[in-house]
Amino acid sequence: MNLPLGYRYSATYAGIRRETRDDLALIVSGVPAAAAAVFTQNRVQAAPVKLCRRHLRASRGQVGAILVNAGNANCATRTGDRVALASCRAVAKQLKLPPAQVLAASTGVIGVELDVNLIQKALPQLVAGLAEDRFSDVARAIMTTDLVPKEAFGEMQFRRGVVRIAGMTKGSGMIQPRMATTLGFVLTDANIPVAKLREILKRSNERSYSRISVDGDTSTNDTLILLANGCSGVRPDPKEYAAFEEGVAVVTETLARQIARDGEGAKKLVTIDVTGAANNDAAAQIARVIANSPLVKTAIAGSDPNWGRVLSAAGNAGVAFDPAKVDIAMQGVTVCRGGLAAHFSEGELKSKLDQAECTIQFQIRGKGKGAARFWTCDLTEGYIRINASYRT
Amino acid sequence: MNLPLGYRYSATYAGIRRETRDDLALIVSGVPAAAAAVFTQNRVQAAPVKLCRRHLRASRGQVGAILVNAGNANCATRTGDRVALASCRAVAKQLKLPPAQVLAASTGVIGVELDVNLIQKALPQLVAGLAEDRFSDVARAIMTTDLVPKEAFGEMQFRRGVVRIAGMTKGSGMIQPRMATTLGFVLTDANIPVAKLREILKRSNERSYSRISVDGDTSTNDTLILLANGCSGVRPDPKEYAAFEEGVAVVTETLARQIARDGEGAKKLVTIDVTGAANNDAAAQIARVIANSPLVKTAIAGSDPNWGRVLSAAGNAGVAFDPAKVDIAMQGVTVCRGGLAAHFSEGELKSKLDQAECTIQFQIRGKGKGAARFWTCDLTEGYIRINASYRT
Repeated sequence: MNLPLGYRYSATYAGIRRETRDDLALIVSGVPAAAAAVFTQNRVQAAPVKLCRRHLRASRGQVGAILVNAGNANCATRTGDRVALASCRAVAKQLKLPPAQVLAASTGVIGVELDVNLIQKALPQLVAGLAEDRFSDVARAIMTTDLVPKEAFGEMQFRRGVVRIAGMTKGSGMIQPRMATTLGFVLTDANIPVAKLREILKRSNERSYSRISVDGDTSTNDTLILLANGCSGVRPDPKEYAAFEEGVAVVTETLARQIARDGEGAKKLVTIDVTGAANNDAAAQIARVIANSPLVKTAIAGSDPNWGRVLSAAGNAGVAFDPAKVDIAMQGVTVCRGGLAAHFSEGELKSKLDQAECTIQFQIRGKGKGAARFWTCDLTEGYIRINASYRT
Repeated sequence: MNLPLGYRYSATYAGIRRETRDDLALIVSGVPAAAAAVFTQNRVQAAPVKLCRRHLRASRGQVGAILVNAGNANCATRTGDRVALASCRAVAKQLKLPPAQVLAASTGVIGVELDVNLIQKALPQLVAGLAEDRFSDVARAIMTTDLVPKEAFGEMQFRRGVVRIAGMTKGSGMIQPRMATTLGFVLTDANIPVAKLREILKRSNERSYSRISVDGDTSTNDTLILLANGCSGVRPDPKEYAAFEEGVAVVTETLARQIARDGEGAKKLVTIDVTGAANNDAAAQIARVIANSPLVKTAIAGSDPNWGRVLSAAGNAGVAFDPAKVDIAMQGVTVCRGGLAAHFSEGELKSKLDQAECTIQFQIRGKGKGAARFWTCDLTEGYIRINASYRT
């Protein structure tokens, strides 16, 4: 897949995390890009999140570079705001950009001071390493407990020419995006006005990052940024915006699904489809509660077609429905019909649930047109092992 | 501790659960008792929950007996309503009570038909076994994944004499009471009018069962029943109602705390105190979200004073607060002051967190008077082991 034109990437080890692997990364657009972003809705917001908001306002949505570090969230620290600002200024100076055109994103442990000297010392090497083909180095540098880097690509033909989209993301725990989650960077060389870009990102986020959960915890650092630098020379027709948006949404969905699949300790990706609710919001709410139920998630881990837990979880969504009108299927096999046990071969279904991808369909009979798709993962002993000793 | 007068108890093995230990129990009051009850707020409600509501209405809050089974929730089954009704009728016939004065409660797996014949066959033996000193046999018979039976007792001296309170409960998983949780039965020989009893139970429940969570899942069968049969001959003065209510609340709190402590896989009871919120509801909401955070609960399992997770969880409560005004203490040791890391000996605190009881204090500085106490448990690999294979 071809990368979007006009972007360069770099990553290095600055000594922020103990483990000796890249922890500082830089994404640079050759010309200032139109930018849209969504951030965590947690009341506690990390310093880089607050700085991004200020910079995007000051620059009216123009971005030349994004500096990302892993290993430290730069949240709930004495010097956080100063460190985030000094880091952006140092990048701006090196790249000869206005400071407001530089964004910052951090991920890692909360409440530990981030040493700005580590960043400033590593910067010259980071900038010297910028290259058009180092996209994957950045995707790898932003990982924390992730087992695999997460990338997604798209290419679209418009009347005036071809545009490319490339996205990367990280995330494995503290995942329940109510807005964005974790860190995600989506780059395109299409030429799109800032206002349009914001609409596109908002809707793409709604059907991707806002539809996944690993453990129901929303982080303090969630940041999803979409840049459009226009370097393809292609400005889609307003009539072509819908197609472009679909391209962006497919990339964010692919990224979000990868996060759920790589959830801490997870062995299975679980796709939950709810249909027949009064509206899409009600469907999403039911899907979210099923996705967050530890009992549903452990049943999936044990390949146990325990549909009673699915029905009970749905009953806690705060959404009115008649249990007697509910059909539930797992791996395409109907396990509950009209709120009652359906006849199915438990042994066969157990084998099907051993697969790496599981589906739960929750269908309310009747006239409701509300539907939603949600992704989560199974809950295994691995999640406990990772999180009982993450920090220390 | 003396048991309340006028109650008899029995338990037997009816073959409802596979394991050969008592699974059917009966609580009988010699004279019809005034009754109050609270039930699950899950949209999916088990047959006995629906039947209890009907019977309490029909009898105007008079109850002579409660039939309880463990091993089958009698929920989401074809014959559930008929089975619950037939069981109550059979008990009524044996005890010569109006059927509406018999309540039923079930706990166990959802979606599997409960065989009424098992209950009817066991009933004569169950009734024959009724005795005043078999309280603990019932407390043991209603257990599912519980490791220990859960009982609490109280005795109070009023102007007209002594009254006694005895409570039992069960519950270990699928625990986040929004109203009541699991099964709880509290009996007293005080003479209290039904309307007063309802008020007392509602408030006692608010500060006990409604303040615990093991895994954030609310069951379909949650039932908490308070009986007052007046057999002590003591009717407290209206002026003494507050003292009586305190006695009931202490019993329900003690029971609820035992549920949290015995949460599936749990090694530690965690008490969360939130102070300084705008009001008690806001404080309870923050405490609930901290209590439900898998990241906080796994940190406690690992004796890791990871206050960043506590702060981040609180930020997701949907309650406005200034992170810079938050102090957090664990085991009485201040770990976060004004939203920032406090100085503390990590090694010492880690040892303190190895204890079987842990406390988290979350204090918002300022004029807010809202406070709430909440109980939960740590999240360990044991929870996963239990729930990945509960049913099959």
